[in-house]
Amino acid sequence: MRVDIYDTTLRDGAQGEGISFTVDDKLKIAAKLDYLGIQYIEGGWPGSNPKDMEFFHRLHEISLKTAKITAFSATRKPGVDVKADNNIRAVLDAGVKHATIFGKAWDFHVVKALETSLQENLNMISDSISYLVSQGLEVIFDAEHFFDGYKSNRDYALKVLEKAAQAGAVCLVLCDTNGGTLPWETGSIVEDIRQHFAVPLGIHVHNDSGLAAANTLMAVKAGASHVQGTVNGYGERCGNADLCTVIPSLELKMGYRTLPSGNLRRLTELSRYVSEIANMPHYNHQPYVGHGAFAHKGGIHVSAMLKDSLTYEHVNPEDVGNHRRVLVSELSGLSNLLYKAKELNIDVNAYDSETRRVMRQIKELENQGFQYEGAEASLELLLRKAFSQFKDYFQLKNLKVILEKNEEEPTTSEAMIKIVVGDRLYHTAADGDGPVNAMDNALRKALDEVYPAIKDMHLTDYKVRVLNGNEGTAARVRVLIDSADGTDKWSTVGVSENIIEASFQALADSINYMLVKRDKATTR
Amino acid sequence: MRVDIYDTTLRDGAQGEGISFTVDDKLKIAAKLDYLGIQYIEGGWPGSNPKDMEFFHRLHEISLKTAKITAFSATRKPGVDVKADNNIRAVLDAGVKHATIFGKAWDFHVVKALETSLQENLNMISDSISYLVSQGLEVIFDAEHFFDGYKSNRDYALKVLEKAAQAGAVCLVLCDTNGGTLPWETGSIVEDIRQHFAVPLGIHVHNDSGLAAANTLMAVKAGASHVQGTVNGYGERCGNADLCTVIPSLELKMGYRTLPSGNLRRLTELSRYVSEIANMPHYNHQPYVGHGAFAHKGGIHVSAMLKDSLTYEHVNPEDVGNHRRVLVSELSGLSNLLYKAKELNIDVNAYDSETRRVMRQIKELENQGFQYEGAEASLELLLRKAFSQFKDYFQLKNLKVILEKNEEEPTTSEAMIKIVVGDRLYHTAADGDGPVNAMDNALRKALDEVYPAIKDMHLTDYKVRVLNGNEGTAARVRVLIDSADGTDKWSTVGVSENIIEASFQALADSINYMLVKRDKATTR
Repeated sequence: MRVDIYDTTLRDGAQGEGISFTVDDKLKIAAKLDYLGIQYIEGGWPGSNPKDMEFFHRLHEISLKTAKITAFSATRKPGVDVKADNNIRAVLDAGVKHATIFGKAWDFHVVKALETSLQENLNMISDSISYLVSQGLEVIFDAEHFFDGYKSNRDYALKVLEKAAQAGAVCLVLCDTNGGTLPWETGSIVEDIRQHFAVPLGIHVHNDSGLAAANTLMAVKAGASHVQGTVNGYGERCGNADLCTVIPSLELKMGYRTLPSGNLRRLTELSRYVSEIANMPHYNHQPYVGHGAFAHKGGIHVSAMLKDSLTYEHVNPEDVGNHRRVLVSELSGLSNLLYKAKELNIDVNAYDSETRRVMRQIKELENQGFQYEGAEASLELLLRKAFSQFKDYFQLKNLKVILEKNEEEPTTSEAMIKIVVGDRLYHTAADGDGPVNAMDNALRKALDEVYPAIKDMHLTDYKVRVLNGNEGTAARVRVLIDSADGTDKWSTVGVSENIIEASFQALADSINYMLVKRDKATTR
Repeated sequence: MRVDIYDTTLRDGAQGEGISFTVDDKLKIAAKLDYLGIQYIEGGWPGSNPKDMEFFHRLHEISLKTAKITAFSATRKPGVDVKADNNIRAVLDAGVKHATIFGKAWDFHVVKALETSLQENLNMISDSISYLVSQGLEVIFDAEHFFDGYKSNRDYALKVLEKAAQAGAVCLVLCDTNGGTLPWETGSIVEDIRQHFAVPLGIHVHNDSGLAAANTLMAVKAGASHVQGTVNGYGERCGNADLCTVIPSLELKMGYRTLPSGNLRRLTELSRYVSEIANMPHYNHQPYVGHGAFAHKGGIHVSAMLKDSLTYEHVNPEDVGNHRRVLVSELSGLSNLLYKAKELNIDVNAYDSETRRVMRQIKELENQGFQYEGAEASLELLLRKAFSQFKDYFQLKNLKVILEKNEEEPTTSEAMIKIVVGDRLYHTAADGDGPVNAMDNALRKALDEVYPAIKDMHLTDYKVRVLNGNEGTAARVRVLIDSADGTDKWSTVGVSENIIEASFQALADSINYMLVKRDKATTR
C-alpha cells in the first residue's frame, strides 16, 4: 500500500515564528526534498507575495527527479469573476501543472472571516477548481477547518467536499487548521467521509494539542492516502505535522510505502539540512531524527542495551539515518563507561580496581558540577588520562586577566599568559571582547606557532550555567564550549567558582582534544 | 470525572539529556508542582544515588499542601531476600508513605535484560510489593514495557499485573517504555485490561514516535484514571508525555478534573519556571504553554483573529495562563508600558512623544538582549529615569578586576573600585570567589559606610545566559540577579559582551532599586 507525501515546508512552514526563507533557500530545500523522494512540494502562494512567485520562475534552475511542484492559492474572492481573480491568475502565471486550492469548510468561518454567504462560498470553490482544471492543471483541494466544520455543520462540510469533487479535484484534503481535534474524532470523521467519496482523501493537521502525528496516522488508518506536513514540523503557532515523525511511522510501523526504497535512511540528513537553512536549532529530542532520539542515559537502560538494543529502542536508528549514543552521567552506571571506553578502543576490565577508581572519579567530578553527557570530548580526555593514554600538549605557568571600567565607558579586557611546550616558554598578551575572549585570544597567540593546526579550529558555542545560584555571586559556574574545525564538532566542559578558571579548563580541553584527534589521524 | 496526575520530572525527567538537577532544584520544583496541585510527585530513586536520597531527607524543608511524594524503585533483585535488598531498603529509609515499584512485563526483557526466569520475575514483583505494603506503604506498580509485553506474550503480561494486584498495589500503571506503540493499539489494549482488573489503571508513555500525548489521551478514554508524565516532556531519548500538553487536553477537551479549580491558569508559569531551573531553553512551539503557541503570523490568520479569536485558536490562551501574540504588528508593547507606568504612579500619556521615545528605547534594549519580563526592578528604574523620577545614588569612577592563575593553583580574583557619592570619593578593594563576587564585595565595602541599609540586602540568585552563542567566547551575555532583604525580593538585568560589565549593571540596578524602595518607605 502506498501513501503520497505532500510537503508544505516552503509555504505553511514559512509561517512559523522565526522562519524566513530566501528564494535561494527555497530552491535548496526543494532539491533536498526531491532527493528524499517526496511526491508533492508546495512551492508557495504566488498570489500572496513576489518572493513566492520568483520561486516558481526560478524553478528551472534545479532539476527535480520525481517531485511535483504545486502552487497554493485561496479560492477566488466573493463576487469576483474567477478569470479576473488575482490569486487564480497568479497560479496560472506560476507556470505549474499542479495547484492546491484551499476553501472554507466551516460555516462559522464563511460568515465570520469571509463575510459571505454559504452558497457563494460553494460557488467560489466550484468555480476556482473547474477553471484551473479547464486550463489543464491537476487540482488538489484543501478543505480548511474541515474537522471544526464537520462538528459544527456536517451537511455543509460534506457539501463543500462534494462541490470540490464535482469540479474535478483529484484529492480532497481534510484540514485540522486549529489543531484542536482529538485522535478518535479524526479517525471516525475520516471514516465517515471515506464512505461518501470515491476521490482520494488527504490529511493536513496542526500540532496545537501535541496530536499532529497521531491525527495523521489515525486518518491514514481510516482511509486517507495523501499526507501533508512540513520538515521538522515548522508552521504557524505550534507547527504542522512533522513529516520526519510521520514518514517513519507510516513506513516502519504501519507498512506503507511513502519514499523510494532505501531513501528513509536520508531522513535525518534532510531534517538537519533544513534546520540549518532555516537557521533554527535542531530539536534534540525530536522523534526519530533528533540528536538525542536514541541517546541512553539511565544505567539500567544502558546495561540492557549492551545485551540487546531492542530492549530500549522502538526502531533501529540506522533505518532513519540516525545513530545510537550512550550518555555518561551520574545516573549511569559502570556499563555506560565500559561502552564509552570500547568506542575509544581503550581496553577496560569491568572488574579491575582501576576501572572502579575512574568511575568514582567521574561521579565525584559530576558531584562538583561537571556534566560529561554534553561534553564528550572532555570525557574522552579524562578516560585517556585515567588509562595513561594521554600527555598534555602544553602546561599553563601563569594567566592574568585584567578588566577595567572607567565611568560610563565599556569595560576593557586584557589577558597575559605564560605557557610551556616541551622546554620552551611562550609569553604573550591579547585584548578581547570580554575576559574569556581575551584569554582565548592570548592562548591561541601563544600556541599557534608550535601548533599551527589551531588556526583551523574555532569556537562555535559558549554556554554558562550557574550551579548553586542561591549563593549569590560566589556561586559555582559550569562552562560548556562547542568547537569545530572543517570536519568535526566537539564539546568540552569546565567547572569552578571562577568563570575564568572554568572557561580555561574547557578551552584547554578543546585544544587538547583537537591535537589528539589530529595526531590519531596522522599516525593512521 | 477525575484523573490523578503523577509527575516524574524529578526522576524520569532527570534522565533527559542535558538535565542535571541539584537537590535544591528538586525541592523548588516539588514546591511548584504542589502549587499547581499535582496529586503525586515522584521524588527520585533513593536506592540509585545519594542525591535522590538526600532529597527525601530534606523534604521537611518545604511544606506541601496536597501533593503526595513517592519513592521509586526496582523490584528486589533475582534470588535476593526482599528484606535484604538494597533498593527496597532505600525506599523504607526514604521515610515516605508512597512507593512506586517497577517490574518487567515483557517476557523478552525478563530473559534478556534481567537474565532470570519468568517465574522468579513474578516472585520479585509479588515480594517487593507485599513487603512494602506490610510496612504500611501505599504502592503503585509500574508495569515496564507493558505494551510490548502484551504484544509478545499477552498471558504473561496479564499475569504480571495479576501478581501486582494480589500483592496489594493500589494502581497498575501500563508503560510504553520504548515509545513505539500506536494510538489505536494503546486504546484497545487498555480496554482489554480494563475488563480484567478492578484496580485503577495508570498510563506512562514515552514520545519516541511523537505519540505520547495521543497515547495518554487514548488510554484515559479507554479507562485509565492515573496519568504519568513530566513537565515539558523531559525524559530519556525523546522524552515522556508532556504534562503541560496532556493536562489541558484532559481538562478543556475531555472534561476531566485533574487540578484544583482555577489552577490550570498556573500551567504556563510552571512550565517556564521548570525550564529555567533545568536551564533548558523553553520550547517556543510547545502546545498550550509555548511562547509561540498562540502567536499569529499569516496575514489571513491575523485579520480573521481581529474579527473572532475562535477562528484560529483551539482554546482560549488565558485558560492555561498563556497569551496571544500577533507577530506582524507590535501593538501590544505600548499598552504594557502604560499599565506598568500606572502601577508606579508615573503619569504617562499614550500620545505623548516622550512616551513613544521610551517605548523605542525599551524595544532597542530588548533588541540588544535585555529582558524585562524577568527583571521588573530594572524596568522600574528605566521608567523612573526616563520620566525624571530618579537620580543615581552613586557614580562609578573606576573599576578594575584582576584575575590570576598560577599553574595548577586555583584562580584568585581581586577588585578595586572608585565610587563617588555626593562630593566624596570612596576607593577600596576586595578579594572574591570569582570576578563577580570580588566586584560585589568591593562595591559593598565602598558603599556600606554611607548606605548602611545595604547590609540588609543580599543576592539570592545569579544567572547567566549566552545570547548569541555562535560567536564563541565573544558572545553577548545576559546576567539576571535576584536580590532580597528581610521583606522583599527583586530582580535586575544587565547585558554586555563582557560578563563583568553585565554583572555590574545588574548589581548597580539592584542596589539602586533597594535604595529607592527604602526612601519611598521613609517618606510615606
